[in-house]
Amino acid sequence: MRFEDTLNKLHALDRECGLLSEVTALLSWDQEVNLPRAGVEERAEQMALMEGLVHGRATSPEIDKLLRELGSTSENPRGDESLPALERDFCKVLRREYDRMAKLPPDFVREYARAQGISQAAWAEARKRNDFAAFAPHLQNMVDIMRRAAGYWGGSGAGVYDCLLDLYEPGVKADEISRLFKPLRERLSALIRQIAARPQPDTSFVEGEYDPDQQARYNHELMKRLGFPLDRGRLDVSAHPFTNGMGYNDIRITTRYAKNDPLSSIFSVIHESGHAFYELHIAPELRGSSLGQGVSMGIHESQSRLLENVVGRSRSFWEGQFPALKEFFPRQLGQVSLDAFYRAVNRVQPSLIRTEADEVSYSLHIILRFELERRIFAGELAVNDLPKAWEESMKEFLGLAPDTDAQGVLQDIHWSQGSFGYFPSYALGNLYGLQFWQKLRSDLPGADAAIAAGNFEPIHTWLADTIHCWGKRLDPPELLKKVTGQVLAPDAFLDYVETKYAGIYGL
Amino acid sequence: MRFEDTLNKLHALDRECGLLSEVTALLSWDQEVNLPRAGVEERAEQMALMEGLVHGRATSPEIDKLLRELGSTSENPRGDESLPALERDFCKVLRREYDRMAKLPPDFVREYARAQGISQAAWAEARKRNDFAAFAPHLQNMVDIMRRAAGYWGGSGAGVYDCLLDLYEPGVKADEISRLFKPLRERLSALIRQIAARPQPDTSFVEGEYDPDQQARYNHELMKRLGFPLDRGRLDVSAHPFTNGMGYNDIRITTRYAKNDPLSSIFSVIHESGHAFYELHIAPELRGSSLGQGVSMGIHESQSRLLENVVGRSRSFWEGQFPALKEFFPRQLGQVSLDAFYRAVNRVQPSLIRTEADEVSYSLHIILRFELERRIFAGELAVNDLPKAWEESMKEFLGLAPDTDAQGVLQDIHWSQGSFGYFPSYALGNLYGLQFWQKLRSDLPGADAAIAAGNFEPIHTWLADTIHCWGKRLDPPELLKKVTGQVLAPDAFLDYVETKYAGIYGL
Repeated sequence: MRFEDTLNKLHALDRECGLLSEVTALLSWDQEVNLPRAGVEERAEQMALMEGLVHGRATSPEIDKLLRELGSTSENPRGDESLPALERDFCKVLRREYDRMAKLPPDFVREYARAQGISQAAWAEARKRNDFAAFAPHLQNMVDIMRRAAGYWGGSGAGVYDCLLDLYEPGVKADEISRLFKPLRERLSALIRQIAARPQPDTSFVEGEYDPDQQARYNHELMKRLGFPLDRGRLDVSAHPFTNGMGYNDIRITTRYAKNDPLSSIFSVIHESGHAFYELHIAPELRGSSLGQGVSMGIHESQSRLLENVVGRSRSFWEGQFPALKEFFPRQLGQVSLDAFYRAVNRVQPSLIRTEADEVSYSLHIILRFELERRIFAGELAVNDLPKAWEESMKEFLGLAPDTDAQGVLQDIHWSQGSFGYFPSYALGNLYGLQFWQKLRSDLPGADAAIAAGNFEPIHTWLADTIHCWGKRLDPPELLKKVTGQVLAPDAFLDYVETKYAGIYGL
Repeated sequence: MRFEDTLNKLHALDRECGLLSEVTALLSWDQEVNLPRAGVEERAEQMALMEGLVHGRATSPEIDKLLRELGSTSENPRGDESLPALERDFCKVLRREYDRMAKLPPDFVREYARAQGISQAAWAEARKRNDFAAFAPHLQNMVDIMRRAAGYWGGSGAGVYDCLLDLYEPGVKADEISRLFKPLRERLSALIRQIAARPQPDTSFVEGEYDPDQQARYNHELMKRLGFPLDRGRLDVSAHPFTNGMGYNDIRITTRYAKNDPLSSIFSVIHESGHAFYELHIAPELRGSSLGQGVSMGIHESQSRLLENVVGRSRSFWEGQFPALKEFFPRQLGQVSLDAFYRAVNRVQPSLIRTEADEVSYSLHIILRFELERRIFAGELAVNDLPKAWEESMKEFLGLAPDTDAQGVLQDIHWSQGSFGYFPSYALGNLYGLQFWQKLRSDLPGADAAIAAGNFEPIHTWLADTIHCWGKRLDPPELLKKVTGQVLAPDAFLDYVETKYAGIYGL
């Protein structure tokens, strides 16, 4: 084959980068799960060294040279037309990542990393002391730095924020997100108002005492029932639940246990399992290469939120799973009916904290952040005015006012890291998810019955063969088109929540 | 200071190597403790890549060049006489390691790391299935690889095995070990015969049912009582107990739990804690450098076996610790006297499994392995004939025959990793340990009373200040000489066991 030698070299370089990234992922996972307290400083040194090695390889001129030999340039990333389709996708992804990293001058990368570390520490301290003013200069610095990064990537004016969005959701622009978020905001706000007028379900039985060890045993059982291949992953405990892969056969999830809130650990396990299944089902021929990962944050969230909410908070799901849960907690749940439990796990109650939000109000937390980010990068909002803008938006969106900045603008870590443009992915995930789900339901009319019977195999197979297998080969809009024939739209999601919660709250 | 610039460069290179080695240690620890089964192959790839990076840096011509600038050569490893003593020791260790590693070709190092990962997994599987034949080709491969390694280091004929011994006990040859092991074998065999003629103590109470979760809780308590700094390390579970450091503030130990044998996990924890204390007490100015590690396997085993046996199986130790153990297991131990427990933890009963062997027969397990290793590398014994040779030796040394290979030749992990020449360190550790202990007792006449009071501080301080602090600065014979004024000899150990067991068995 023409180009064979070049392709082999490029794949070998890519593989080395991938292995080093996996090793770095283990350092990071271990830091959250195992690291003894006094080991933190040296771990940071180990991480910095490994990240430097990954960066050095990913931006080595050898990659650019090999890509050029294959005809891949910034203008024509997919390379020579005679290449097999898989290799053209490989070129596209490698060219994009190379251009993104290589366009940043090394001095800038160092400045960015340093500023990020300082800003994140300042955020943690400011949140603890509830002192936005102390964090503001660091936040301003991160805004400036990300604006400069976007400049290196060719973004100016309105294009700056689009450049940042592209890091998390390739090909999706701010204007499109605004169009999608408008009906989302209107219909979700209306739904919340209707729900607020109705009586709340009793949830006292999920606020009792649930032994964390017993929760852990139940969650392991639940993972088995979900079909999580425990020879290719594991469940551990960390301060914040997350999924991390340190190998294509080694995808690990975490959860956390609160004695008075068993639902927190259970739905974290289902959510993170959704992320993990995506990575576990990537086509074997992509594994270990840059194509062998989830394509975007939005598609990733579509998979986690689909499993957590659409499947995991459905009546069918608990029809199959509630008996086992009762066996693990007979004293607390023995007398609770399936209906009461189903209503409890779907209680809608606007609150100040995004990560604790229910399925209906969650997207409003996101839209709020999206609009603030956009105004900052459009120069319409000053960083110093953020707390006030946050408070106003919170009242407008959810009818609540934070007592403190810690419960408001300082609650999330993302901005302190310079991760602007990341938040929208969470809400886009809801939209993708329900468009995929509509198609799944039409392909698999027996899906609900299978879920009720505790059989998740048909769903996993459909998601794997239709979505997961592609890895990074298809960009999000292409993937959505291929699977559903549609473009991104809010209706499927909105119809779903309106119907579901009309049933639950008798609207 | 003259040489300052060169020294700074050399220390920076050494530090980078050290950090990469720590990352590799985490990969290895995680493989034993956490790795999902299907992740084994890719982990081997990750290990091979990292070991290649360590090797590349440790053998970079820059190190040789800098060492030469400091006057350090293979003939004069400690370098220029004007250097501070600490830097001269640094040169000595770096020169030795450089010479050892630079002689191994990078391709060979990668092949070795990959083969090691696969062989280790094959061993674990073979042991589970009791199938030596499935493991034999991997073992043969490891023998061939280590023979080739010794070849690169200049070993041939009888020198091959000496080369391998040198990895674990610098400067100690097979012939010297044979000389030391001769009286060891004779006097220990005689002691075992005498003991066999006496009635055995009742040990039924340590063969009852001990909940593994409760054992784990007790072992964490025991670590605290021993003074293990749990902000600088942790305890986990693995198939074979071990200690590994992935940072100077991150020294981790493991144990394993058997429902009917609480002593196994307890004494593993004490043993591994002995290893960990050695690493934790290295002088602060050596931490993070190549000098900041234990000097040899033999000295390491002296520390672990001293804590496990001489301290941990003493009457004084349980005088302080038995009440707490009883509180954890009141049903099983509530009616047991201190004397009965002391006799039970010192029961001498030749058995098939090395790690479960008592203090008297333990060294015979080692001598058996030493002789088999020596015969394999002398070409006198084929890998395929190992199970038979094992059985014959076992009968000769301990009068026992294993029913299965899992209880025989497959019981230890070492050979699967290519760690030939490692086993003798365990027995040498007994000898060093008792020579050190003699000196400790003469320096600290109140040692026994402190142990009985559950106060291990004086012992830790003495060991830290006298032995641990040195790291790799002093080679084993120098260290032994400095601490005790003696050369390595079996008498202190043999006198100790003969006296102790004469008391226990009324000989």
